[in-house]
Amino acid sequence: MLIRRFQSTVSSNLKKGTGIVFMNMGGPSTVKETYDFLFRLFSDGDLIPFGRFQNILARFIATRRTPKIESYYKAIGGGSPIRKWSEYQSSKLCEKLDIISPQSAPHKPYVAFRYANPLTEDTLQKMKNDGITKAIAFSQYPQFSYSTTGSSINELYRQSKILDPEQSIKWTVIDRWPDHPALVKTFAAHIKDTLNRFKTENGMTDTKNVVLQFSAHSLPMDIVNKGDSYPAEVAASVFAIMKELNFSNPYKLTWQSQVGPKPWLGAQTEKITKQLASSDVPGVVLVPIAFTSDHIETLHELDIELIQELPDPSKVKRVESLNGDQTFIDYLAELVKSHIDSEIVFSRQLPLDSMLGVVSDNSLTDPKEFFRAH
Amino acid sequence: MLIRRFQSTVSSNLKKGTGIVFMNMGGPSTVKETYDFLFRLFSDGDLIPFGRFQNILARFIATRRTPKIESYYKAIGGGSPIRKWSEYQSSKLCEKLDIISPQSAPHKPYVAFRYANPLTEDTLQKMKNDGITKAIAFSQYPQFSYSTTGSSINELYRQSKILDPEQSIKWTVIDRWPDHPALVKTFAAHIKDTLNRFKTENGMTDTKNVVLQFSAHSLPMDIVNKGDSYPAEVAASVFAIMKELNFSNPYKLTWQSQVGPKPWLGAQTEKITKQLASSDVPGVVLVPIAFTSDHIETLHELDIELIQELPDPSKVKRVESLNGDQTFIDYLAELVKSHIDSEIVFSRQLPLDSMLGVVSDNSLTDPKEFFRAH
Repeated sequence: MLIRRFQSTVSSNLKKGTGIVFMNMGGPSTVKETYDFLFRLFSDGDLIPFGRFQNILARFIATRRTPKIESYYKAIGGGSPIRKWSEYQSSKLCEKLDIISPQSAPHKPYVAFRYANPLTEDTLQKMKNDGITKAIAFSQYPQFSYSTTGSSINELYRQSKILDPEQSIKWTVIDRWPDHPALVKTFAAHIKDTLNRFKTENGMTDTKNVVLQFSAHSLPMDIVNKGDSYPAEVAASVFAIMKELNFSNPYKLTWQSQVGPKPWLGAQTEKITKQLASSDVPGVVLVPIAFTSDHIETLHELDIELIQELPDPSKVKRVESLNGDQTFIDYLAELVKSHIDSEIVFSRQLPLDSMLGVVSDNSLTDPKEFFRAH
Repeated sequence: MLIRRFQSTVSSNLKKGTGIVFMNMGGPSTVKETYDFLFRLFSDGDLIPFGRFQNILARFIATRRTPKIESYYKAIGGGSPIRKWSEYQSSKLCEKLDIISPQSAPHKPYVAFRYANPLTEDTLQKMKNDGITKAIAFSQYPQFSYSTTGSSINELYRQSKILDPEQSIKWTVIDRWPDHPALVKTFAAHIKDTLNRFKTENGMTDTKNVVLQFSAHSLPMDIVNKGDSYPAEVAASVFAIMKELNFSNPYKLTWQSQVGPKPWLGAQTEKITKQLASSDVPGVVLVPIAFTSDHIETLHELDIELIQELPDPSKVKRVESLNGDQTFIDYLAELVKSHIDSEIVFSRQLPLDSMLGVVSDNSLTDPKEFFRAH
């Protein structure tokens, strides 16, 4: 009787499997969620440290920017597709993981956004209701910045203290993957597809002088100058992709989406694209290297604000985002399997990045206080 | 008779072989060369664009800075060792090349510095006197910046127009090698040696938490924001070395040697080293990743100004520079051999970098105007 009860506990523990949590910034799925999204974004002291004026300034800036950003979301079809793609990618990934990693099955997909639904606290509550006891926080920012991945980790830590104080869920984290084949091989394939479009759509016979312009979301120099890992890891992604392509084309890494009056890391994507488009360079391929799915920075900032405003938009083409690409998802599943098999709890970089990046008292300064082996 | 004369011409052409020209910024070999070195440096519009005040400002700044910089050269033994190492490395490299690349032999070593003796014009004259007709300009900056490699190339172009207007010398160029084994494998070995010193000198049993702090010469944000390749290529070097080391330790890329009031790329080496040295990090290995031999930035800025001023200098150790390392030189020879065998005249990146970087009218904007196949 005792043995049977024990066996049943073990088997039900085993059956709970592993929660795979896609962490990202998120975006408003509908236009009316825009204000809440912006308010949460500007309230994040890890991203934009306003100190004790954080709440007041966040309300002010979000209110002021909402009408314009709402018009952008209207222009791209009424909302950000990031939730749709994150839910699709995570569920397909779990299907694949159930096959290649039976010892950690069943795998249950979750999405936890920093500034939009589903929010971290709602996802955590759902995981507790589902009886999850082992989970992997999987950053969907391939390159680590304290202002993005760091902020998501801090939010997970803070919400867990409230919603799971007994630590019923054991967490590990995949905090970066800048040179993983998931990124490198898939982007290399998408770049080749886009180079081919110059042949089929523009009648170009040889694409070897088309410039590959990799574009990543920029960072304020304040954050860069603290020693944030992001600029170097983005550069590592770019170099790995160029190596995969045998350096077939000239390339450049530039930075987009700068806002506000403070200095940000350049060169600015828009400036360089315009310079290239007006030169005798035959074409430009834009590669949004720090995003894994479409959102406003690809669909509006690059496609509409930048490309459509050029004298000859056909000269600049953006690669398709990773979105529902099955090759990408299969590689992601291998990435998670390696993480599980390696028994790594967090990367060797995370403690150093946490130490250099820390802004507020309410942050996870030592990853081993929260993350532990399954 | 005719045939004999023909054969003799061919054989004397063949015997001229290939000039291998190490290009670098250089440094004053003796203290009294300091002013000239600084004056030439601040006169370089590709490095510091002062416009029409270039000459006046260069004279002013060089005069003002000379006494302090002279004292630095006195402190490191009376001059920069960069000439000694460059001459040693290039001559050893040519010995090796004569063996592994007999078809381009004999290889004749030259050094062409941008701001110190031997200057580009003197080296060019010497090459003409030696009857050299084929030469490889080999940048000793492993990562390309328009302000360093670009400036050296422009100087070679300008001086050749004066001294070799008939283009009796055919030039190709090795303009970057950020992830070559010469750099990656040699630095990885020097890092391991330095980690071992923490065991032998500091009695440390496990060095896995020692931070590897890679330090490269910084750039003004003006240059970064034009799209200079350097920051991303330095990051590629760092990532390649960490991969070679299987990410054995936490690491960070920082930037040194900032001067003047304008914003430069950070995080600053000094600031981060001090922050790490005063934390509970057990030790720091400094890796000067953009230099191939010792000079004032390693011997004075890192070893004396930074490390010796720390409360506990034993906590921070600098890796030995590549200098006379035979493994490094053997890999460099393989690099040059690959360049010769590939028949590449310049990298696919050089035209784009020249277009984005160009400052003055008197520059090489299209590399194929000057460089051509042997």
